[in-house]
Amino acid sequence: MAIPHLHFVQSVRVSSPCRISFPNQYHYGGSNFSRKSSSLVYASTHNFDRDLHLQSKVETVLDNVKWDDKGLAVAIAQNVDTGAILMQGFANREAVAMTVSSRKATFYSRSRSTLWTKGETSNNFINVQEIFLDCDRDSIIYLGKPDGPTCHTGSETCYYTPVLDFLEHRQDEEHKLALTTLYSLESTIAKRKEELEVPESGKPSWTCRLLSDEKLLCSKIREEADELCQTLEENEDRLRAASEMADVLYHGMALLARKGVKMEEVLEILRRRFSQSGIEEKRNRKSQA
Amino acid sequence: MAIPHLHFVQSVRVSSPCRISFPNQYHYGGSNFSRKSSSLVYASTHNFDRDLHLQSKVETVLDNVKWDDKGLAVAIAQNVDTGAILMQGFANREAVAMTVSSRKATFYSRSRSTLWTKGETSNNFINVQEIFLDCDRDSIIYLGKPDGPTCHTGSETCYYTPVLDFLEHRQDEEHKLALTTLYSLESTIAKRKEELEVPESGKPSWTCRLLSDEKLLCSKIREEADELCQTLEENEDRLRAASEMADVLYHGMALLARKGVKMEEVLEILRRRFSQSGIEEKRNRKSQA
Repeated sequence: MAIPHLHFVQSVRVSSPCRISFPNQYHYGGSNFSRKSSSLVYASTHNFDRDLHLQSKVETVLDNVKWDDKGLAVAIAQNVDTGAILMQGFANREAVAMTVSSRKATFYSRSRSTLWTKGETSNNFINVQEIFLDCDRDSIIYLGKPDGPTCHTGSETCYYTPVLDFLEHRQDEEHKLALTTLYSLESTIAKRKEELEVPESGKPSWTCRLLSDEKLLCSKIREEADELCQTLEENEDRLRAASEMADVLYHGMALLARKGVKMEEVLEILRRRFSQSGIEEKRNRKSQA
Repeated sequence: MAIPHLHFVQSVRVSSPCRISFPNQYHYGGSNFSRKSSSLVYASTHNFDRDLHLQSKVETVLDNVKWDDKGLAVAIAQNVDTGAILMQGFANREAVAMTVSSRKATFYSRSRSTLWTKGETSNNFINVQEIFLDCDRDSIIYLGKPDGPTCHTGSETCYYTPVLDFLEHRQDEEHKLALTTLYSLESTIAKRKEELEVPESGKPSWTCRLLSDEKLLCSKIREEADELCQTLEENEDRLRAASEMADVLYHGMALLARKGVKMEEVLEILRRRFSQSGIEEKRNRKSQA
């Protein structure tokens, strides 16, 4: 059964039992990036049965998506480490199949009526680690790691226009990224650090005190870690444990601000150490070497 | 200028300088929930000028959205604490205006051609704290706190069908939520904890050892906190600080698992302590009391 819009999936060559990879002549990055169907229609001489099996599984997935009357589904790109929603576009069958094979978030441009891979001009690709369908199968998450800012404006994400802020007269004309709790706290700590650098600009705050007093900061981190342990050792209630962990996190993040480290870097380390994709990443690096 | 689809925004009564609230006769929660236009077209006797000003600002926002040919924009609901994408729907002008006034994530159902507020039947509302537009102004994030599972299946989010997992023969028939790094680690630790409860089921792992040895776990937490402090005290490089913070987080999360505490609870505490919306929440609780 020939499925024309899936022709390029036939180009996929499987280099390891569990990993779809690109044929060598298909390069991403810099001006080498191209999406010529000639380079995509690629007859693999290896693993022919496996290719066919994979192709049929990809088709099963694509058949399962509930495409709208224009053959599209909503596709949301999300940062796997921070959870930030990077951008939202639309995907058709080819865009999803392309994302599966390239592991670069690919969309269908409704205005230009073409496929486009985020990063093909800016080099800021979104490296997709998993793709999720929702319960209705008409909405897709590309969960991945961006190479750089996602928005064409240079912003980390495309969502930097807060509506309620505007309505509530905050008169804050600056862009404000859609930050979830951890990154909102990180941003607050970063602001306090900036205030410290301009004498007499900031209001006195505990965060400012911590940031300007290394001894105090370190003694607080040790104290909070100790109090967290006590919740276990002395069988304190679970809310107390949550509260002590919040203290550990906050004080630890103040130290990170002092060292110029972002939480995203910490989470990337955790992902590489613990997650399935991290373990795979390692294996792939080894097999590529 | 009369804008028919904005008629219900006229019902909004402002109870504090920076906060839109519902008129008293409009109840959310349980079977009291109803959306009768009769209760919405509500002439406020107070703050008439402020109402008009707010109404005009809401209109400005709604005029700014790039609605598609059906008058819709994509609306994504995201958990403000965990960053989890809860669900995605579509919103029209009325849905966004309703969300602004009720602070409950409200969508437009394309199949039923009606507004619907997530939670109106299940009571699992999504309490919106901020609304973001993207750079193209045709995509919206409702950033908020869900009262319970968002998906109609009872799943925490609607995204539990992993595509690459399926393609890569992992044969894992279980649902797997779209988890970002921190929650993926939390889930791994929880699995190890479950394995401990079934003798001889688990493979030996460091996480299992930590979870079964309270003394070891606490000594590791204190040790890692100490090593994090040393990166500042001994001027070690920033990557070392990131790595030590990762250790603190991981070991702290192992303790949370022992205590049955979720990271989401820790983040909620941080939000209430530090974020703007947390400060407002407190203020509102006081003004309501």
